[in-house]
Amino acid sequence: MSSIGIFDSGVGGLTVAREIIRQLPNENIVYFGDTARVPYGIKSPQTVIRFSIENILFLLKQDVKLICVACNTASSFALPVIKNHFRAPIIGVISPGVREAVYATQNKRVGVIGTKGTIKSRTYEIEIKHLDPKVKVTVAACPLFVPFVEEGWLEGEVVLNVARKYLQPLKDAGVDTVILGCTHYPLLKPMIQEVLGKNVTLIDSAKQVAVEVKKILANEDMLNRGQGGKHKFYVSDNPEWFSSLAQRFMGKRLSDVRKVDNV
Amino acid sequence: MSSIGIFDSGVGGLTVAREIIRQLPNENIVYFGDTARVPYGIKSPQTVIRFSIENILFLLKQDVKLICVACNTASSFALPVIKNHFRAPIIGVISPGVREAVYATQNKRVGVIGTKGTIKSRTYEIEIKHLDPKVKVTVAACPLFVPFVEEGWLEGEVVLNVARKYLQPLKDAGVDTVILGCTHYPLLKPMIQEVLGKNVTLIDSAKQVAVEVKKILANEDMLNRGQGGKHKFYVSDNPEWFSSLAQRFMGKRLSDVRKVDNV
Repeated sequence: MSSIGIFDSGVGGLTVAREIIRQLPNENIVYFGDTARVPYGIKSPQTVIRFSIENILFLLKQDVKLICVACNTASSFALPVIKNHFRAPIIGVISPGVREAVYATQNKRVGVIGTKGTIKSRTYEIEIKHLDPKVKVTVAACPLFVPFVEEGWLEGEVVLNVARKYLQPLKDAGVDTVILGCTHYPLLKPMIQEVLGKNVTLIDSAKQVAVEVKKILANEDMLNRGQGGKHKFYVSDNPEWFSSLAQRFMGKRLSDVRKVDNV
Repeated sequence: MSSIGIFDSGVGGLTVAREIIRQLPNENIVYFGDTARVPYGIKSPQTVIRFSIENILFLLKQDVKLICVACNTASSFALPVIKNHFRAPIIGVISPGVREAVYATQNKRVGVIGTKGTIKSRTYEIEIKHLDPKVKVTVAACPLFVPFVEEGWLEGEVVLNVARKYLQPLKDAGVDTVILGCTHYPLLKPMIQEVLGKNVTLIDSAKQVAVEVKKILANEDMLNRGQGGKHKFYVSDNPEWFSSLAQRFMGKRLSDVRKVDNV
Protein backbone atom coordinates (compact mmCIF):
# COMPACT_ATOMS: atom_id res chain seq x y z
CA MET A 1 0.00 0.00 0.00
CA SER A 2 1.97 3.01 -1.20
CA SER A 3 1.43 6.29 0.64
CA ILE A 4 1.21 9.97 -0.10
CA GLY A 5 4.39 11.59 1.23
CA ILE A 6 4.19 15.10 2.65
CA PHE A 7 7.05 17.17 4.02
CA ASP A 8 7.40 20.57 5.62
CA SER A 9 10.06 22.37 7.66
CA GLY A 10 7.91 21.71 10.74
CA VAL A 11 4.27 21.77 11.76
CA GLY A 12 2.85 24.22 9.19
CA GLY A 13 2.36 21.50 6.57
CA LEU A 14 -0.19 19.83 8.83
CA THR A 15 -2.76 22.32 7.50
CA VAL A 16 -2.16 20.68 4.11
CA ALA A 17 -2.10 17.16 5.54
CA ARG A 18 -5.45 17.76 7.22
CA GLU A 19 -7.06 18.74 3.93
CA ILE A 20 -5.53 15.79 2.04
CA ILE A 21 -6.81 13.42 4.74
CA ARG A 22 -10.26 15.03 4.56
CA GLN A 23 -10.51 14.72 0.78
CA LEU A 24 -8.75 11.36 0.50
CA PRO A 25 -9.72 9.40 3.61
CA ASN A 26 -8.66 6.06 2.15
CA GLU A 27 -5.09 7.10 1.38
CA ASN A 28 -2.11 6.25 3.56
CA ILE A 29 -0.09 9.32 4.54
CA VAL A 30 3.54 9.66 5.60
CA TYR A 31 4.31 13.13 6.96
CA PHE A 32 7.82 14.37 7.69
CA GLY A 33 8.47 17.60 9.62
CA ASP A 34 12.10 18.75 9.63
CA THR A 35 11.87 20.19 13.14
CA ALA A 36 15.63 19.88 13.76
CA ARG A 37 16.31 22.45 11.04
CA VAL A 38 13.14 24.55 11.16
CA PRO A 39 12.56 27.31 10.02
CA TYR A 40 13.32 27.28 6.27
CA GLY A 41 11.98 30.78 5.58
CA ILE A 42 15.17 32.57 6.60
CA LYS A 43 17.58 30.21 4.80
CA SER A 44 19.25 30.38 1.39
CA PRO A 45 17.96 28.70 -1.78
CA GLN A 46 20.93 26.29 -1.85
CA THR A 47 20.34 25.17 1.73
CA VAL A 48 16.57 24.80 1.28
CA ILE A 49 17.18 22.75 -1.88
CA ARG A 50 19.64 20.48 -0.02
CA PHE A 51 17.23 19.98 2.89
CA SER A 52 14.33 19.31 0.49
CA ILE A 53 16.26 16.63 -1.38
CA GLU A 54 17.17 14.92 1.89
CA ASN A 55 13.53 15.00 3.00
CA ILE A 56 12.36 13.56 -0.33
CA LEU A 57 14.91 10.74 -0.10
CA PHE A 58 13.61 9.95 3.38
CA LEU A 59 10.02 9.83 2.09
CA LEU A 60 10.95 7.66 -0.90
CA LYS A 61 12.39 5.13 1.55
CA GLN A 62 8.89 4.97 3.13
CA ASP A 63 7.44 3.78 -0.20
CA VAL A 64 5.53 6.88 -1.26
CA LYS A 65 3.79 7.18 -4.63
CA LEU A 66 3.47 10.97 -4.69
CA ILE A 67 5.23 13.72 -2.77
CA CYS A 68 3.63 16.94 -1.63
CA VAL A 69 5.98 19.77 -0.66
CA ALA A 70 3.75 21.36 1.98
CA CYS A 71 6.04 24.31 2.58
CA ASN A 72 5.96 27.49 0.54
CA THR A 73 9.67 28.25 0.96
CA ALA A 74 10.68 24.76 -0.22
CA SER A 75 8.11 24.91 -3.04
CA SER A 76 9.50 28.29 -4.14
CA PHE A 77 13.20 27.42 -4.02
CA ALA A 78 13.44 23.68 -4.52
CA LEU A 79 10.51 22.57 -6.65
CA PRO A 80 11.55 24.29 -9.90
CA VAL A 81 15.00 22.67 -9.60
CA ILE A 82 14.16 19.15 -8.47
CA LYS A 83 10.65 18.34 -9.61
CA ASN A 84 11.83 15.97 -12.33
CA HIS A 85 14.66 14.34 -10.37
CA PHE A 86 12.69 11.57 -8.72
CA ARG A 87 10.52 8.63 -9.73
CA ALA A 88 7.44 9.92 -7.84
CA PRO A 89 5.44 12.96 -8.99
CA ILE A 90 6.15 15.98 -6.78
CA ILE A 91 3.66 18.78 -6.25
CA GLY A 92 4.08 22.02 -4.34
CA VAL A 93 1.77 24.55 -2.74
CA ILE A 94 2.44 27.54 -5.01
CA SER A 95 0.60 26.75 -8.26
CA PRO A 96 -2.69 25.67 -6.63
CA GLY A 97 -2.83 28.92 -4.63
CA VAL A 98 -1.95 30.98 -7.69
CA ARG A 99 -4.72 29.43 -9.78
CA GLU A 100 -7.28 30.04 -7.05
CA ALA A 101 -6.20 33.65 -6.55
CA VAL A 102 -6.21 34.53 -10.24
CA TYR A 103 -9.68 33.00 -10.49
CA ALA A 104 -10.93 34.85 -7.40
CA THR A 105 -9.71 38.39 -8.03
CA GLN A 106 -12.24 40.85 -9.48
CA ASN A 107 -10.08 43.95 -9.63
CA LYS A 108 -6.92 42.14 -10.83
CA ARG A 109 -4.99 43.18 -7.75
CA VAL A 110 -3.59 40.28 -5.77
CA GLY A 111 -1.50 40.38 -2.61
CA VAL A 112 0.93 37.68 -1.51
CA ILE A 113 2.32 37.28 2.02
CA GLY A 114 5.02 34.79 2.98
CA THR A 115 8.40 34.21 4.58
CA LYS A 116 11.42 36.23 3.51
CA GLY A 117 12.61 33.31 1.37
CA THR A 118 9.31 32.85 -0.42
CA ILE A 119 8.93 36.56 -1.15
CA LYS A 120 12.55 36.94 -2.23
CA SER A 121 12.23 34.00 -4.65
CA ARG A 122 9.53 35.94 -6.57
CA THR A 123 7.96 32.57 -7.48
CA TYR A 124 4.41 33.74 -6.73
CA GLU A 125 4.77 36.89 -8.84
CA ILE A 126 6.24 34.94 -11.73
CA GLU A 127 3.53 32.25 -11.64
CA ILE A 128 0.69 34.78 -11.33
CA LYS A 129 2.04 36.87 -14.23
CA HIS A 130 2.45 33.70 -16.27
CA LEU A 131 -1.22 32.83 -15.76
CA ASP A 132 -2.56 36.37 -16.20
CA PRO A 133 -0.12 39.16 -17.11
CA LYS A 134 -2.77 41.78 -16.31
CA VAL A 135 -2.81 41.00 -12.58
CA LYS A 136 -0.95 43.53 -10.43
CA VAL A 137 0.88 41.71 -7.61
CA THR A 138 1.85 43.29 -4.27
CA VAL A 139 4.00 41.22 -1.92
CA ALA A 140 4.92 41.48 1.76
CA ALA A 141 7.29 39.36 3.83
CA CYS A 142 5.93 38.70 7.33
CA PRO A 143 8.89 37.13 9.16
CA LEU A 144 7.41 37.34 12.66
CA PHE A 145 4.19 35.49 11.78
CA VAL A 146 5.82 32.04 12.01
CA PRO A 147 7.28 32.65 15.51
CA PHE A 148 3.89 34.06 16.59
CA VAL A 149 2.02 30.95 15.43
CA GLU A 150 4.58 28.59 16.95
CA GLU A 151 4.27 30.49 20.25
CA GLY A 152 0.48 30.28 20.03
CA TRP A 153 0.05 34.06 19.74
CA LEU A 154 -2.83 34.10 17.28
CA GLU A 155 -4.53 37.31 18.43
CA GLY A 156 -4.10 40.26 20.76
CA GLU A 157 -2.69 43.75 20.52
CA VAL A 158 0.93 42.75 19.79
CA VAL A 159 0.11 40.45 16.90
CA LEU A 160 -2.42 42.93 15.54
CA ASN A 161 0.12 45.78 15.54
CA VAL A 162 2.70 43.71 13.70
CA ALA A 163 0.07 42.57 11.19
CA ARG A 164 -1.04 46.16 10.56
CA LYS A 165 2.55 47.12 9.82
CA TYR A 166 3.20 44.16 7.50
CA LEU A 167 -0.11 44.38 5.63
CA GLN A 168 -0.24 48.14 5.03
CA PRO A 169 1.34 47.91 1.53
CA LEU A 170 -1.39 45.45 0.51
CA LYS A 171 -4.10 47.81 1.78
CA ASP A 172 -2.45 50.74 -0.02
CA ALA A 173 -2.43 48.72 -3.25
CA GLY A 174 -6.18 48.00 -2.93
CA VAL A 175 -5.88 44.23 -3.38
CA ASP A 176 -9.14 42.26 -3.24
CA THR A 177 -7.45 38.85 -2.90
CA VAL A 178 -4.51 37.78 -0.74
CA ILE A 179 -2.62 34.50 -0.92
CA LEU A 180 -1.58 33.18 2.50
CA GLY A 181 1.78 32.05 1.12
CA CYS A 182 2.97 30.11 4.16
CA THR A 183 1.37 27.05 5.70
CA HIS A 184 1.48 28.66 9.16
CA TYR A 185 -0.67 31.61 8.17
CA PRO A 186 -4.11 29.95 8.02
CA LEU A 187 -4.00 29.97 11.83
CA LEU A 188 -3.78 33.78 11.73
CA LYS A 189 -6.67 34.04 9.24
CA PRO A 190 -9.21 35.76 11.57
CA MET A 191 -6.64 38.35 12.55
CA ILE A 192 -5.43 38.96 8.97
CA GLN A 193 -9.05 39.26 7.83
CA GLU A 194 -9.69 41.84 10.55
CA VAL A 195 -6.75 43.97 9.39
CA LEU A 196 -7.50 43.70 5.66
CA GLY A 197 -11.27 44.00 5.99
CA LYS A 198 -14.00 41.51 5.24
CA ASN A 199 -14.18 42.24 1.51
CA VAL A 200 -10.73 40.81 0.86
CA THR A 201 -10.66 37.13 -0.13
CA LEU A 202 -7.97 35.13 1.66
CA ILE A 203 -6.57 32.16 -0.28
CA ASP A 204 -5.31 29.22 1.75
CA SER A 205 -3.96 26.78 -0.83
CA ALA A 206 -4.43 23.60 1.27
CA LYS A 207 -7.83 22.72 -0.25
CA GLN A 208 -6.65 23.27 -3.79
CA VAL A 209 -3.49 21.24 -3.15
CA ALA A 210 -5.61 18.30 -2.00
CA VAL A 211 -7.76 18.60 -5.14
CA GLU A 212 -4.62 18.45 -7.26
CA VAL A 213 -3.23 15.44 -5.37
CA LYS A 214 -6.52 13.64 -5.94
CA LYS A 215 -6.51 14.51 -9.65
CA ILE A 216 -2.98 13.22 -10.22
CA LEU A 217 -3.60 9.97 -8.36
CA ALA A 218 -6.84 9.43 -10.30
CA ASN A 219 -5.18 10.18 -13.66
CA GLU A 220 -2.33 7.80 -12.94
CA ASP A 221 -4.72 5.17 -11.57
CA MET A 222 -2.91 5.23 -8.24
CA LEU A 223 -5.81 5.85 -5.85
CA ASN A 224 -5.94 3.44 -2.93
CA ARG A 225 -8.82 1.00 -3.31
CA GLY A 226 -8.76 -0.08 0.34
CA GLN A 227 -10.72 1.51 3.16
CA GLY A 228 -9.43 3.84 5.87
CA GLY A 229 -5.90 5.13 5.29
CA LYS A 230 -3.13 4.93 7.87
CA HIS A 231 -1.28 8.12 8.86
CA LYS A 232 2.32 8.17 10.02
CA PHE A 233 4.09 11.23 11.36
CA TYR A 234 7.87 11.58 11.55
CA VAL A 235 9.98 14.52 12.75
CA SER A 236 13.71 15.15 12.99
CA ASP A 237 13.36 16.63 16.50
CA ASN A 238 10.97 17.30 19.37
CA PRO A 239 8.13 14.80 18.76
CA GLU A 240 6.29 15.95 21.93
CA TRP A 241 6.35 19.61 20.89
CA PHE A 242 5.18 18.66 17.39
CA SER A 243 2.44 16.52 18.83
CA SER A 244 1.14 19.30 21.07
CA LEU A 245 1.21 21.88 18.25
CA ALA A 246 -0.66 19.42 16.01
CA GLN A 247 -3.75 20.17 18.06
CA ARG A 248 -3.65 23.70 16.66
CA PHE A 249 -2.94 22.68 13.05
CA MET A 250 -4.86 19.42 12.66
CA GLY A 251 -7.62 19.96 15.17
CA LYS A 252 -6.49 16.85 17.05
CA ARG A 253 -3.52 15.66 19.06
CA LEU A 254 -1.26 13.14 17.34
CA SER A 255 -0.49 10.24 19.62
CA ASP A 256 2.29 8.55 17.70
CA VAL A 257 4.94 10.92 16.34
CA ARG A 258 8.31 9.28 15.73
CA LYS A 259 11.70 10.98 15.78
CA VAL A 260 14.10 9.99 12.99
CA ASP A 261 17.50 11.25 11.87
CA ASN A 262 16.83 11.99 8.23
CA VAL A 263 20.46 12.99 7.64
CA MET B 1 49.50 29.84 15.13
CA SER B 2 46.61 28.12 16.86
CA SER B 3 43.34 30.03 17.16
CA ILE B 4 40.52 30.50 19.61
CA GLY B 5 37.48 28.71 18.22
CA ILE B 6 34.03 30.16 18.86
CA PHE B 7 30.70 28.73 17.78
CA ASP B 8 27.09 29.78 18.03
CA SER B 9 23.84 28.82 16.35
CA GLY B 10 24.08 32.04 14.34
CA VAL B 11 25.04 35.66 14.83
CA GLY B 12 24.40 36.04 18.58
CA GLY B 13 27.84 34.73 19.52
CA LEU B 14 29.41 37.72 17.79
CA THR B 15 28.72 39.71 20.99
CA VAL B 16 31.11 37.27 22.70
CA ALA B 17 33.59 37.31 19.79
CA ARG B 18 33.74 41.10 19.94
CA GLU B 19 34.67 41.05 23.62
CA ILE B 20 37.31 38.31 23.14
CA ILE B 21 38.83 40.31 20.28
CA ARG B 22 38.81 43.47 22.44
CA GLN B 23 40.52 41.79 25.39
CA LEU B 24 42.84 39.55 23.36
CA PRO B 25 43.76 41.57 20.26
CA ASN B 26 46.74 39.37 19.42
CA GLU B 27 44.80 36.12 19.27
CA ASN B 28 43.63 34.49 16.06
CA ILE B 29 39.91 33.76 16.05
CA VAL B 30 37.88 31.22 14.09
CA TYR B 31 34.13 31.81 14.43
CA PHE B 32 31.51 29.37 13.20
CA GLY B 33 27.81 30.32 13.01
CA ASP B 34 25.46 27.40 12.27
CA THR B 35 23.05 29.55 10.26
CA ALA B 36 21.69 26.58 8.28
CA ARG B 37 20.19 25.12 11.45
CA VAL B 38 19.54 28.26 13.51
CA PRO B 39 17.82 28.66 15.99
CA TYR B 40 18.90 26.17 18.69
CA GLY B 41 16.66 27.60 21.44
CA ILE B 42 13.57 25.66 20.36
CA LYS B 43 15.33 22.32 19.78
CA SER B 44 15.77 19.27 21.98
CA PRO B 45 18.84 18.53 24.16
CA GLN B 46 19.81 15.53 21.97
CA THR B 47 19.70 17.60 18.78
CA VAL B 48 21.59 20.56 20.29
CA ILE B 49 24.25 18.14 21.60
CA ARG B 50 24.59 16.56 18.13
CA PHE B 51 24.89 19.94 16.42
CA SER B 52 27.41 21.15 19.04
CA ILE B 53 29.65 18.12 18.55
CA GLU B 54 29.60 18.65 14.77
CA ASN B 55 30.50 22.31 15.22
CA ILE B 56 33.36 21.46 17.60
CA LEU B 57 34.74 18.89 15.13
CA PHE B 58 34.67 21.56 12.43
CA LEU B 59 36.55 24.00 14.68
CA LEU B 60 39.14 21.38 15.67
CA LYS B 61 39.92 20.89 11.97
CA GLN B 62 40.78 24.62 11.88
CA ASP B 63 43.53 24.05 14.47
CA VAL B 64 41.99 25.71 17.50
CA LYS B 65 43.59 25.61 20.96
CA LEU B 66 40.47 26.50 22.96
CA ILE B 67 36.77 26.40 22.15
CA CYS B 68 34.19 28.88 23.38
CA VAL B 69 30.56 27.81 23.15
CA ALA B 70 29.10 31.27 22.62
CA CYS B 71 25.49 30.11 22.76
CA ASN B 72 23.53 29.73 25.97
CA THR B 73 21.34 26.89 24.70
CA ALA B 74 24.36 24.86 23.57
CA SER B 75 26.21 25.72 26.79
CA SER B 76 23.20 24.56 28.83
CA PHE B 77 22.52 21.31 27.01
CA ALA B 78 25.81 20.21 25.49
CA LEU B 79 28.62 21.49 27.69
CA PRO B 80 27.93 19.31 30.75
CA VAL B 81 27.90 16.24 28.49
CA ILE B 82 30.84 16.91 26.17
CA LYS B 83 33.26 19.22 27.95
CA ASN B 84 35.82 16.48 28.53
CA HIS B 85 35.45 14.73 25.17
CA PHE B 86 37.97 16.74 23.19
CA ARG B 87 41.64 17.62 23.32
CA ALA B 88 41.01 21.38 23.55
CA PRO B 89 39.57 23.07 26.66
CA ILE B 90 35.93 24.06 26.11
CA ILE B 91 34.27 26.91 27.94
CA GLY B 92 30.67 28.03 27.86
CA VAL B 93 28.79 31.22 28.64
CA ILE B 94 26.78 30.06 31.68
CA SER B 95 29.32 29.91 34.53
CA PRO B 96 30.89 33.34 33.87
CA GLY B 97 27.45 34.99 33.91
CA VAL B 98 26.45 33.10 37.05
CA ARG B 99 29.56 34.20 38.92
CA GLU B 100 29.03 37.83 37.96
CA ALA B 101 25.34 37.76 38.95
CA VAL B 102 25.92 36.12 42.32
CA TYR B 103 28.63 38.72 42.98
CA ALA B 104 26.39 41.61 41.88
CA THR B 105 23.13 40.88 43.69
CA GLN B 106 22.50 42.74 46.94
CA ASN B 107 19.09 41.34 47.81
CA LYS B 108 19.89 37.75 46.78
CA ARG B 109 17.17 37.76 44.13
CA VAL B 110 18.42 37.03 40.63
CA GLY B 111 16.41 36.80 37.42
CA VAL B 112 17.42 34.78 34.36
CA ILE B 113 15.98 35.25 30.87
CA GLY B 114 16.75 32.98 27.92
CA THR B 115 15.41 30.76 25.16
CA LYS B 116 12.93 27.99 25.93
CA GLY B 117 15.75 25.43 25.79
CA THR B 118 18.04 27.32 28.16
CA ILE B 119 15.26 27.92 30.70
CA LYS B 120 13.97 24.36 30.46
CA SER B 121 17.47 22.95 31.07
CA ARG B 122 17.51 24.67 34.52
CA THR B 123 21.30 24.98 34.14
CA TYR B 124 21.37 28.58 35.37
CA GLU B 125 19.30 27.81 38.46
CA ILE B 126 21.46 24.79 39.29
CA GLU B 127 24.73 26.71 38.87
CA ILE B 128 23.52 29.71 40.87
CA LYS B 129 22.27 27.51 43.73
CA HIS B 130 25.55 25.63 43.64
CA LEU B 131 27.48 28.87 44.11
CA ASP B 132 25.12 30.41 46.67
CA PRO B 133 22.16 28.37 47.90
CA LYS B 134 20.62 31.48 49.49
CA VAL B 135 19.96 33.18 46.16
CA LYS B 136 16.34 33.06 45.00
CA VAL B 137 16.17 32.56 41.22
CA THR B 138 13.27 33.62 38.98
CA VAL B 139 13.38 32.56 35.33
CA ALA B 140 11.51 33.61 32.20
CA ALA B 141 11.69 32.23 28.67
CA CYS B 142 11.51 34.99 26.04
CA PRO B 143 11.09 33.08 22.76
CA LEU B 144 10.21 36.07 20.60
CA PHE B 145 13.32 38.09 21.54
CA VAL B 146 15.57 36.21 19.09
CA PRO B 147 13.26 36.77 16.09
CA PHE B 148 12.94 40.44 17.11
CA VAL B 149 16.71 40.94 17.19
CA GLU B 150 17.23 39.09 13.92
CA GLU B 151 14.55 41.30 12.33
CA GLY B 152 16.23 44.39 13.75
CA TRP B 153 13.25 45.26 15.96
CA LEU B 154 15.18 46.55 18.97
CA GLU B 155 12.66 49.11 20.22
CA GLY B 156 9.14 50.38 19.66
CA GLU B 157 5.70 49.66 21.06
CA VAL B 158 5.46 46.04 19.85
CA VAL B 159 8.77 44.93 21.33
CA LEU B 160 8.07 46.87 24.52
CA ASN B 161 4.69 45.19 25.01
CA VAL B 162 6.16 41.72 24.55
CA ALA B 163 9.01 42.54 26.93
CA ARG B 164 6.58 43.81 29.58
CA LYS B 165 4.68 40.54 29.36
CA TYR B 166 7.80 38.35 29.55
CA LEU B 167 9.52 40.32 32.32
CA GLN B 168 6.56 40.77 34.68
CA PRO B 169 7.42 37.66 36.80
CA LEU B 170 10.92 39.10 37.38
CA LYS B 171 9.45 42.43 38.49
CA ASP B 172 6.98 40.63 40.75
CA ALA B 173 9.85 38.71 42.34
CA GLY B 174 11.74 41.94 43.07
CA VAL B 175 15.03 40.84 41.47
CA ASP B 176 17.89 43.36 41.57
CA THR B 177 20.05 41.49 39.03
CA VAL B 178 19.10 39.85 35.73
CA ILE B 179 21.26 37.58 33.59
CA LEU B 180 20.78 38.12 29.84
CA GLY B 181 20.97 34.39 29.20
CA CYS B 182 21.09 34.51 25.42
CA THR B 183 23.77 36.12 23.27
CA HIS B 184 21.11 37.97 21.27
CA TYR B 185 19.75 39.83 24.26
CA PRO B 186 22.51 42.43 24.80
CA LEU B 187 21.08 44.19 21.73
CA LEU B 188 17.78 44.61 23.58
CA LYS B 189 19.54 45.91 26.72
CA PRO B 190 18.18 49.51 26.61
CA MET B 191 14.65 48.23 26.18
CA ILE B 192 14.95 45.56 28.90
CA GLN B 193 16.46 48.16 31.24
CA GLU B 194 13.52 50.47 30.55
CA VAL B 195 11.01 47.76 31.48
CA LEU B 196 12.86 46.54 34.58
CA GLY B 197 13.88 49.97 35.82
CA LYS B 198 17.32 51.53 36.15
CA ASN B 199 18.09 49.99 39.55
CA VAL B 200 18.24 46.47 38.14
CA THR B 201 21.73 45.30 37.10
CA LEU B 202 21.80 43.52 33.73
CA ILE B 203 24.49 40.87 33.34
CA ASP B 204 25.83 40.28 29.85
CA SER B 205 28.32 37.44 30.22
CA ALA B 206 30.47 38.32 27.18
CA LYS B 207 33.05 40.35 29.16
CA GLN B 208 33.41 37.70 31.84
CA VAL B 209 33.73 34.97 29.21
CA ALA B 210 36.62 36.83 27.61
CA VAL B 211 38.29 37.22 31.04
CA GLU B 212 38.01 33.47 31.53
CA VAL B 213 39.40 32.68 28.06
CA LYS B 214 42.38 34.91 28.81
CA LYS B 215 42.96 33.26 32.19
CA ILE B 216 42.92 29.72 30.76
CA LEU B 217 45.27 30.61 27.91
CA ALA B 218 47.64 32.36 30.35
CA ASN B 219 47.59 29.43 32.81
CA GLU B 220 48.30 26.93 30.06
CA ASP B 221 50.94 29.19 28.53
CA MET B 222 49.03 29.27 25.27
CA LEU B 223 48.71 33.02 24.69
CA ASN B 224 49.78 34.12 21.24
CA ARG B 225 53.08 36.00 21.37
CA GLY B 226 52.69 37.51 17.91
CA GLN B 227 51.07 40.84 17.12
CA GLY B 228 47.62 41.45 15.64
CA GLY B 229 45.41 38.37 15.49
CA LYS B 230 43.62 37.23 12.35
CA HIS B 231 39.85 36.68 12.46
CA LYS B 232 38.04 34.16 10.27
CA PHE B 233 34.28 33.81 10.07
CA TYR B 234 32.49 30.73 8.75
CA VAL B 235 28.77 30.01 8.48
CA SER B 236 26.73 27.05 7.28
CA ASP B 237 24.35 29.31 5.34
CA ASN B 238 23.65 32.87 4.23
CA PRO B 239 27.06 34.57 4.49
CA GLU B 240 25.65 37.87 3.18
CA TRP B 241 22.88 37.96 5.76
CA PHE B 242 25.35 37.10 8.51
CA SER B 243 27.69 39.78 7.29
CA SER B 244 25.00 42.45 7.33
CA LEU B 245 23.78 41.47 10.82
CA ALA B 246 27.38 41.55 12.05
CA GLN B 247 27.16 45.32 11.87
CA ARG B 248 24.62 45.16 14.69
CA PHE B 249 26.51 42.63 16.81
CA MET B 250 30.14 43.52 16.20
CA GLY B 251 29.83 47.20 15.46
CA LYS B 252 31.38 46.60 12.05
CA ARG B 253 30.58 44.86 8.79
CA LEU B 254 32.50 41.66 8.13
CA SER B 255 33.87 41.59 4.63
CA ASP B 256 34.98 37.98 4.34
CA VAL B 257 32.44 35.46 5.64
CA ARG B 258 32.81 31.98 4.15
CA LYS B 259 30.06 29.41 3.71
CA VAL B 260 30.99 25.84 4.62
CA ASP B 261 29.04 22.59 4.91
CA ASN B 262 29.95 21.50 8.43
CA VAL B 263 27.94 18.29 8.10
